[in-house]
Amino acid sequence: MPNLSKPPVTVLGLGAMGSALVEALLVAGYPTTVWNRTPDRAKPLVTKGAVHATNVSEAVAASRLVIVCLLDYKSVTDVLDTAGDALAGRVLVNLTNGTPAQARQVADRYDVDYLDGGIMAVPPMIGGPGAFLFYSGSRSAFDTNRPVLDVFGESQYVGTDSGLAALHDIGLLSGMYGMFVGVLHAFAFVGTEGVPATTFAPLLKRYIGGMLGFVDGAAEQIDKDDYTINVVSNIAMQSAGYVNLTQSTHDQGISPELLAPLGPLMARRVADGHGHEDLAGVIELLKKGKK
Amino acid sequence: MPNLSKPPVTVLGLGAMGSALVEALLVAGYPTTVWNRTPDRAKPLVTKGAVHATNVSEAVAASRLVIVCLLDYKSVTDVLDTAGDALAGRVLVNLTNGTPAQARQVADRYDVDYLDGGIMAVPPMIGGPGAFLFYSGSRSAFDTNRPVLDVFGESQYVGTDSGLAALHDIGLLSGMYGMFVGVLHAFAFVGTEGVPATTFAPLLKRYIGGMLGFVDGAAEQIDKDDYTINVVSNIAMQSAGYVNLTQSTHDQGISPELLAPLGPLMARRVADGHGHEDLAGVIELLKKGKK
Repeated sequence: MPNLSKPPVTVLGLGAMGSALVEALLVAGYPTTVWNRTPDRAKPLVTKGAVHATNVSEAVAASRLVIVCLLDYKSVTDVLDTAGDALAGRVLVNLTNGTPAQARQVADRYDVDYLDGGIMAVPPMIGGPGAFLFYSGSRSAFDTNRPVLDVFGESQYVGTDSGLAALHDIGLLSGMYGMFVGVLHAFAFVGTEGVPATTFAPLLKRYIGGMLGFVDGAAEQIDKDDYTINVVSNIAMQSAGYVNLTQSTHDQGISPELLAPLGPLMARRVADGHGHEDLAGVIELLKKGKK
Repeated sequence: MPNLSKPPVTVLGLGAMGSALVEALLVAGYPTTVWNRTPDRAKPLVTKGAVHATNVSEAVAASRLVIVCLLDYKSVTDVLDTAGDALAGRVLVNLTNGTPAQARQVADRYDVDYLDGGIMAVPPMIGGPGAFLFYSGSRSAFDTNRPVLDVFGESQYVGTDSGLAALHDIGLLSGMYGMFVGVLHAFAFVGTEGVPATTFAPLLKRYIGGMLGFVDGAAEQIDKDDYTINVVSNIAMQSAGYVNLTQSTHDQGISPELLAPLGPLMARRVADGHGHEDLAGVIELLKKGKK
């Protein structure tokens, strides 16, 4: 039930994530006003206690704290541009997926106390123990509204530059997608000989989990700009072994395309005289202008 | 000290890994005969109790169990072809890195009881708790020599087809390299805004570790050939988000090449009418002939 001792919150955008945010707010007792371009999405939330605003200005006027969670940044400006003067002085928390540059553009566009957020969770995780969210931009907006933000998951503030939440968000997603890429390649590869994926899965989880120590080792090398520290298997040896990986993927009738780009980068590091160093040195080749 | 109640073992190849295998055998008390193309590599091991054979035939004649750990498969046949009749009837355990096809070729080439192995460890891990090794080929060779093999690490037998150890080995390495690729991209990306890798590392380890549940979900979908089971975030949504990832990587001045191949594969699955399904369906596009 809405609790009048809690400040009102407005949520713009009721896709799967926006709806999950509203549900978490309602469960926590925040009076919540909602708006969506297609109004039907509001109905199940109204049943649970949300107030449905018929236009953006009305929704924004209802609460000092306005949360936006839309499909993309084009939608964000399309929607917020219709709010007119109602936005002035509001705290705007933008949880729409985007890039650091997009976050900075929105921060500059409106007369608001701006906080950008990156949600490290899928909608069913919102409000549960596994969800966490990065925030960047206005420190005071973060501190003042922390109790509301903590409703969604663990909140971590990463800096005053509003692009930093998206930077952290995309950084973590990059790590995740790399792991996904390796897992999919692995399943395709062992599947060629009839090894069931469910048989291979426990071995794969254990092995990748065990190799996560790479993250700390690489981090130290990167920060010290010294890829000769604590080298266990040098890049020359790994590069030679990687040829087996791609060759046998071909042999087994599978396209190695997901993992292919690492091979030439390793070979270039070796050719450039870094063969005795660690694999992590390939990040030097990702920096443009160094090619 | 060599223990005469333990059977003698011969090790051909004294690179970093071969030497680590010999040291583990000596610590465990196995009388060990060693050979290397360049004999100097044998000296430190002789000091620790190994017997140095001056040629391959003499080394092979010294033990019923012969372990080979060389640079590559070309070296394996170059070396074993010089053994002549001495190999006949021996148990040959080949721990050289290679592909499933190469393992099968060596199994067929010699009159031996053949066991192929894949070492899931770097040399310093041999004999320690974190090392494990896959074996495939002769079941009786595995069972009879299990006590010796267990000296190196946890031993897992994966089938009579001698190519299966290399298949499992490369499958796990694929998963690991995918994770590495994601981690390196992530560090390069967040580094563009001055976020130290050592600051980002704990977040990255935690996030990738938390997302390892993907392995089990994908495995079930793959084995059931049904990518509509337990879809949390469908591939159409992930594909749209992936555009942010690659675009912002460009924006930040970093080449997205390591993670780039996944984008077009996702887009093709969506274009092929699988947008409501899970990401794991992209493995269908890795199977040749399906392109």
